[in-house]
Amino acid sequence: MLALRIADGLRLDPAAAEPRPGPNEALVRMRLAGVCDTDLQLVRGYMGFRGVPGHEFVGEVAAALDASLIGARVAGEINAGCGRCEACAAGWQRHCPDRTVLGILGRNGAHAQFLSLPLENLHRIPAGLDDELAVLTEPLAAAYEVVEQRPPRASERWLVLGDGKLGLLVAAVLHSDGAAPVLAGRHARKLAIAAGWGVRTAPAESLNERGWDVVVEATGAADGLERALALVRPRGTIVLKTTVAEPPRAPLAPIVVDEVTVIGSRCGPFPRALAGFARLEAAGVRLAELIEARFPLSDGLAAYERAGRRGSLKVLIEP
Amino acid sequence: MLALRIADGLRLDPAAAEPRPGPNEALVRMRLAGVCDTDLQLVRGYMGFRGVPGHEFVGEVAAALDASLIGARVAGEINAGCGRCEACAAGWQRHCPDRTVLGILGRNGAHAQFLSLPLENLHRIPAGLDDELAVLTEPLAAAYEVVEQRPPRASERWLVLGDGKLGLLVAAVLHSDGAAPVLAGRHARKLAIAAGWGVRTAPAESLNERGWDVVVEATGAADGLERALALVRPRGTIVLKTTVAEPPRAPLAPIVVDEVTVIGSRCGPFPRALAGFARLEAAGVRLAELIEARFPLSDGLAAYERAGRRGSLKVLIEP
Repeated sequence: MLALRIADGLRLDPAAAEPRPGPNEALVRMRLAGVCDTDLQLVRGYMGFRGVPGHEFVGEVAAALDASLIGARVAGEINAGCGRCEACAAGWQRHCPDRTVLGILGRNGAHAQFLSLPLENLHRIPAGLDDELAVLTEPLAAAYEVVEQRPPRASERWLVLGDGKLGLLVAAVLHSDGAAPVLAGRHARKLAIAAGWGVRTAPAESLNERGWDVVVEATGAADGLERALALVRPRGTIVLKTTVAEPPRAPLAPIVVDEVTVIGSRCGPFPRALAGFARLEAAGVRLAELIEARFPLSDGLAAYERAGRRGSLKVLIEP
Repeated sequence: MLALRIADGLRLDPAAAEPRPGPNEALVRMRLAGVCDTDLQLVRGYMGFRGVPGHEFVGEVAAALDASLIGARVAGEINAGCGRCEACAAGWQRHCPDRTVLGILGRNGAHAQFLSLPLENLHRIPAGLDDELAVLTEPLAAAYEVVEQRPPRASERWLVLGDGKLGLLVAAVLHSDGAAPVLAGRHARKLAIAAGWGVRTAPAESLNERGWDVVVEATGAADGLERALALVRPRGTIVLKTTVAEPPRAPLAPIVVDEVTVIGSRCGPFPRALAGFARLEAAGVRLAELIEARFPLSDGLAAYERAGRRGSLKVLIEP
């Protein structure tokens, strides 16, 4: 099959081996996949990953022991647990110490004609939801994880730091849930998209008020936590989304002195994301505006190049 | 009056000016004061503090507009707010951006014959509580802050990292509240004290299980957070007590990847601490065993020297 492959850089592999699903897994034909900033980092060596990248997709089941699934349109949770450990027993497959992660860790991903995932990872896509939105299920779930971990309370002031794809999704979720967030960023074009949805926005450099109840750090930048600490109120909360490979450059003493709570936040609940598309639309959020460009898989290198341009939004790959 | 004074190092000042309390403040005669590790750091230049150090004390009211207070035995909360800002209005004087802090920031402290504090900061000491225990009210409140911010839940595994004075107090509070913590440290003598109270203990170097639900970081060491991150379970909680002036040396990516919650924790609730002495005693905790030595104020330099010895427990100063 045709696939993109990371091995000392990214290349197109016209003769990649098709995945061979295990007995509790499905073979999924990719219909549409997204390129995530994490994919770009993997190409640069993050996680030491070698194989097929890609973890955002909508596909259809091509083979599975449960015949009722064949042909179903699905999105898939990306963490596959061992099924035996304490984390898996508690329902936290995504925190299993022996997990594989689609296109990130020990499991080939979605930038290919086919992928495989455990059946329990798959979620059917509602009939009315276009592929172009359904492909956003995984990042939207990561956005919903914020309110799953830290539900907004009445009259709190929420700030979302970073107007990248994740920051826009988090702001959209908060907006549709009535939390009236402010989205701060450095890209006028992206802030304008959020403003068009009815989200309040602010240029990042205009922020000087230290008093936000909750700051969602979605900058993707190494100094994101430092900036969030300078903006959150004492006893406030920071939801930390950016993984940074290097140690921070600023001291963390303000966390203790100001009794700030920092909540690490990664992958999120697919069912809530799938139910969220309608809520977002009803709130005036047009997620399709996040789509920057579409490329065929055969032109996958160009897709990555486009996704890597400064200020780029979501780039999609079709088989 | 006689006082210790920090000004390019620590010295004894036999002719320090007596504090002049404002209209809503009391003049308090010191009966007994404790030396905290923070005091030792202040001598080394922390916070740029110049003045009389000391923020742990029991005293008696020598002068106040409210005559009913004269002679009352009191402990005192150390943060004095401006009384006008949002934090003060919310009852969080200890997070007022314009606060003074007894013996730490903009206000002379308790290592002197007299100190002054706002009336609202003072708490009467119950009649049956000895000075030698009452002087521990401030650090005990800091220990209670842990369970105030993160109440233990049934069958959770709590680990207290660090067998210094604060770690011992936190372990004692958790023990008396039925949370059955494990206290880990590097000092056999201190672990033995906790073991004598019925607290489970472990040498720090024996810890290798990554799976604690809550880790209280009370190491006082720059790598405390890093060690806590290596021990807490995914989606677990770290209560961070140590303020570190330098940036961490390890990346914080595990906070995000493992969705760990980090709660900064500083000063705590005096009423809960004052009520806690009886609970602790009933649970077999003999706090007096934390007292290492007593020195007269006139020998205050020796008190600091003793408090600074490796492995030292609580050193007290009497007027």
